[in-house]
Amino acid sequence: VLRATTAISAAIAHGVNSIIPVADLDTARKYQEEGYIVAAERNGQVVEGFDLGNSPYSYMNPDLKGKDVVLTTTNGTRAIDMAKHMDQVVIGALVNLDSVIQYLTEQNKSVLLLGSGWKGKFNLEDSICAGAIADALIQTGNFKAEEDSTIAAKYIARSARENIFGFLKASSHRRRLRNLNLNKDMKYCLTPNTLDVIPVLKGNAIVNVSHALVEK
Amino acid sequence: VLRATTAISAAIAHGVNSIIPVADLDTARKYQEEGYIVAAERNGQVVEGFDLGNSPYSYMNPDLKGKDVVLTTTNGTRAIDMAKHMDQVVIGALVNLDSVIQYLTEQNKSVLLLGSGWKGKFNLEDSICAGAIADALIQTGNFKAEEDSTIAAKYIARSARENIFGFLKASSHRRRLRNLNLNKDMKYCLTPNTLDVIPVLKGNAIVNVSHALVEK
Repeated sequence: VLRATTAISAAIAHGVNSIIPVADLDTARKYQEEGYIVAAERNGQVVEGFDLGNSPYSYMNPDLKGKDVVLTTTNGTRAIDMAKHMDQVVIGALVNLDSVIQYLTEQNKSVLLLGSGWKGKFNLEDSICAGAIADALIQTGNFKAEEDSTIAAKYIARSARENIFGFLKASSHRRRLRNLNLNKDMKYCLTPNTLDVIPVLKGNAIVNVSHALVEK
Repeated sequence: VLRATTAISAAIAHGVNSIIPVADLDTARKYQEEGYIVAAERNGQVVEGFDLGNSPYSYMNPDLKGKDVVLTTTNGTRAIDMAKHMDQVVIGALVNLDSVIQYLTEQNKSVLLLGSGWKGKFNLEDSICAGAIADALIQTGNFKAEEDSTIAAKYIARSARENIFGFLKASSHRRRLRNLNLNKDMKYCLTPNTLDVIPVLKGNAIVNVSHALVEK
């Protein structure tokens, strides 16, 4: 949620053709040598020598419309890499929360909610997002929580939902990001349902689901 | 909480001299050969060939007064083993919640709350207990949460506190225990503040803190 999956959703919503997630900087550099536009973020900042980081605003650039952008981030793209062997990988964020919930409800398949976290550790914002998705799916009556962590995430999401931004003021991760002067990004990332996109992994690239269906 | 740390607290409160936690069954068998009373639980049941499991009620036996009891459990004693190199290990459960909170408040040192979980995975009951401790410590004004998981646990504890037993009806772990007909144990384990003991690790044995201080 802060910020890879939000940036991916924003990119897809603003006309970027695809995001190619890669787990490490070496792979990112190889794509760069081949002439790709490459975004690389580590510890909240753009890595030196790369064009973009993971601020969602940087993907609203008209020059990126129709382009394929390679992306590597501290946590998000590693989680996508871990999940790539699943039947389907859907990119969820708060900005596209209801779109993802609707899509998963329609698919009616088993769902594993994988939060990227922060350097291998639990974080609040991904748990709030996962918990909100779980809560909505369970309420359809067609899904049940298999793990205690899902139930916990549901209650964390309920505790936070009136004011996610305020809730995260207590979060170490948020404090870290505040130090980087990312208040504007934070507000964007933590405002639910501003985008109607469902980014999914197709081969090695993330595209909007409608695009993925057309090409099937 | 379900049930190793509750059983340890009950044992200490009912006059057992010490509990010697061991991580594996082989070590437990060696103690048995030396003539110790040995309790061994795996997957919620007493392991064949051992005297006791981890039901708190089994430690209220007058025959155990003044005795040293060796204990190995699926999750709890492994967590204690992981923590044994810390400055001090305090055994927390819901049954001795306020005693542990008061002790940690008085000590005024950094606290790492380690939930045993279930076979390496998150569980609700340990998170509720850890979250209740964290919530109380933070409210003293002398402690702050360093990790998002602490903040999450605090909110899970708040969601559960009116009816911990009811809250855990949704838990897979609870369902598992219900299958073993452990309703009486569950009620005991999930009722806060019935015991005024602070079990701490001293050398290789868990004793009440007053005992540990006297012997220092």
